[in-house]
Amino acid sequence: MILTGWNETMENIRIQISRIARCAQLAMLLEVSATPKPGNIDRDHNYTDTRFEHFLASAVGVYPVLEKAASSKSGAGSLIHEAVIESRRWQKGGNTHFGAFTLLIPLVIAAGKCENTSCLKAQVKKVVRETTVEDAVEFYRAFSEAGVKVKPVGQLDLGDASSIDKTREQGLTLFDLMEISSGYDMIAEEWAHGFHKTFECAASIQDKLGRFGINDAVVLTFMEILSRHKDTFIQTKFNSEKAEQVSVKANEILNKGDICEIRDAIHSFDEELLKAGINPGSTADIIIAGLFVLLFEGVRF
Amino acid sequence: MILTGWNETMENIRIQISRIARCAQLAMLLEVSATPKPGNIDRDHNYTDTRFEHFLASAVGVYPVLEKAASSKSGAGSLIHEAVIESRRWQKGGNTHFGAFTLLIPLVIAAGKCENTSCLKAQVKKVVRETTVEDAVEFYRAFSEAGVKVKPVGQLDLGDASSIDKTREQGLTLFDLMEISSGYDMIAEEWAHGFHKTFECAASIQDKLGRFGINDAVVLTFMEILSRHKDTFIQTKFNSEKAEQVSVKANEILNKGDICEIRDAIHSFDEELLKAGINPGSTADIIIAGLFVLLFEGVRF
Repeated sequence: MILTGWNETMENIRIQISRIARCAQLAMLLEVSATPKPGNIDRDHNYTDTRFEHFLASAVGVYPVLEKAASSKSGAGSLIHEAVIESRRWQKGGNTHFGAFTLLIPLVIAAGKCENTSCLKAQVKKVVRETTVEDAVEFYRAFSEAGVKVKPVGQLDLGDASSIDKTREQGLTLFDLMEISSGYDMIAEEWAHGFHKTFECAASIQDKLGRFGINDAVVLTFMEILSRHKDTFIQTKFNSEKAEQVSVKANEILNKGDICEIRDAIHSFDEELLKAGINPGSTADIIIAGLFVLLFEGVRF
Repeated sequence: MILTGWNETMENIRIQISRIARCAQLAMLLEVSATPKPGNIDRDHNYTDTRFEHFLASAVGVYPVLEKAASSKSGAGSLIHEAVIESRRWQKGGNTHFGAFTLLIPLVIAAGKCENTSCLKAQVKKVVRETTVEDAVEFYRAFSEAGVKVKPVGQLDLGDASSIDKTREQGLTLFDLMEISSGYDMIAEEWAHGFHKTFECAASIQDKLGRFGINDAVVLTFMEILSRHKDTFIQTKFNSEKAEQVSVKANEILNKGDICEIRDAIHSFDEELLKAGINPGSTADIIIAGLFVLLFEGVRF
């Protein structure tokens, strides 16, 4: 009888872990599918070497790492590293989800520790604050694996292997690194300030879901975030002024009164950004994190 | 030391199970994304109540059932039934993958029993032949859960609950049911005749992959299958003549010499079929099965 109870508990835990991992996976799929997300890859837009299908394969490939995160089987840093490795094992399109993994992994770890959905906000703050120096080291390794462009963090260049030694010497945790970068990096800011934009994003998509359907709810929320925050990916690839211009333009579009006018303007904006190679990738990462929160809360469509 | 060996073996089995389930999941995602697949839902075409996103959510939702299949934890019939239930739990768009599950589940069970990829063909024949009366009963239950239109199987109407009793009385296995239906049903024919079209489909996609990329390799193979076989879904919804006309038209298009002309003609054909509500759903199911075989063989893009 006791054994039956034990088996049932284990089965329920297994189901919950799988549910959390699937929410994260579906968040990645819904984000990359939502069209048009100005400047980014979506179901109707590819870059030359990285295509929509590479994002599908990456979301599929990473599944076991998401389950490991939901059951807290490793630290956040090594899970982000593993996620990058698994993503690249399943597709040949290069970096697809590095920023997304950096947000999703702590959220998924936190979800796995939650008895109910309302504790997610408090739990994710705790998860990131508890990261260690080893998490920081693994994050560096993930970085060089993913081959992403970034600004140096203070004196530490993420692309430089000697930074690992410096991080160890200075005893910096992954949370410390994120705090240092939070002034100019949207993803790091989420870590440092309680995933504020992520939860706002979830609320915004939910608010629009009934009226516009899942695709347009995501697209409009993407535009909202872009209009309010300079995208880190654009800042790193170009500069702060370019990111600012894109945000101002996004804001102008959303201020057009009529939804049909807004839709048309988003289409033109998309073409303009694609032509100029301006892709607000960090904003897309926030969308994935927000969609995860929403799906974890049980929202379906 | 012995325990370490045992743990390693268990871990390798776990990885293999997850790899197989992910191949099946990615097959579903690549199929629904491939565009234009004349008459069917794809990344650019929705029906009124069933949309592209419902197929994404269904492919995500079914994941744990695919892992169960890869580890032979239940019979084929009850796994197909579970797959339908899980698919509907994750999306509100109705039936998305019933035919696909009917093909994928035995293929995934077989893959889980294979030491190497070359044994898949022989193993899947064995898996379907070993199905039982209980598998048939569970398949009926899956059917009424999915709400799919079908022709009665001999004296047995799949929509009628009393057929379950009749199946039990007559001692019909799921393989028997498929054999009875194999003359007019593409999916049943695969069960009865060694998944012939599925393996042909895999070879055809692989053949085109390097030259055309994954999207067009799938679309062209879809057209090939459609040109050679009357689609069961069209036969059931309309009649045999309509299915024949669609196949003839698909053949005419493929016989245009130039790939650009073929592409244009596929686009027009897609619009024509969508307008008439003619969707070759069973051909799409074969594509999913073929993509699974290809991915299981280790092909990446």
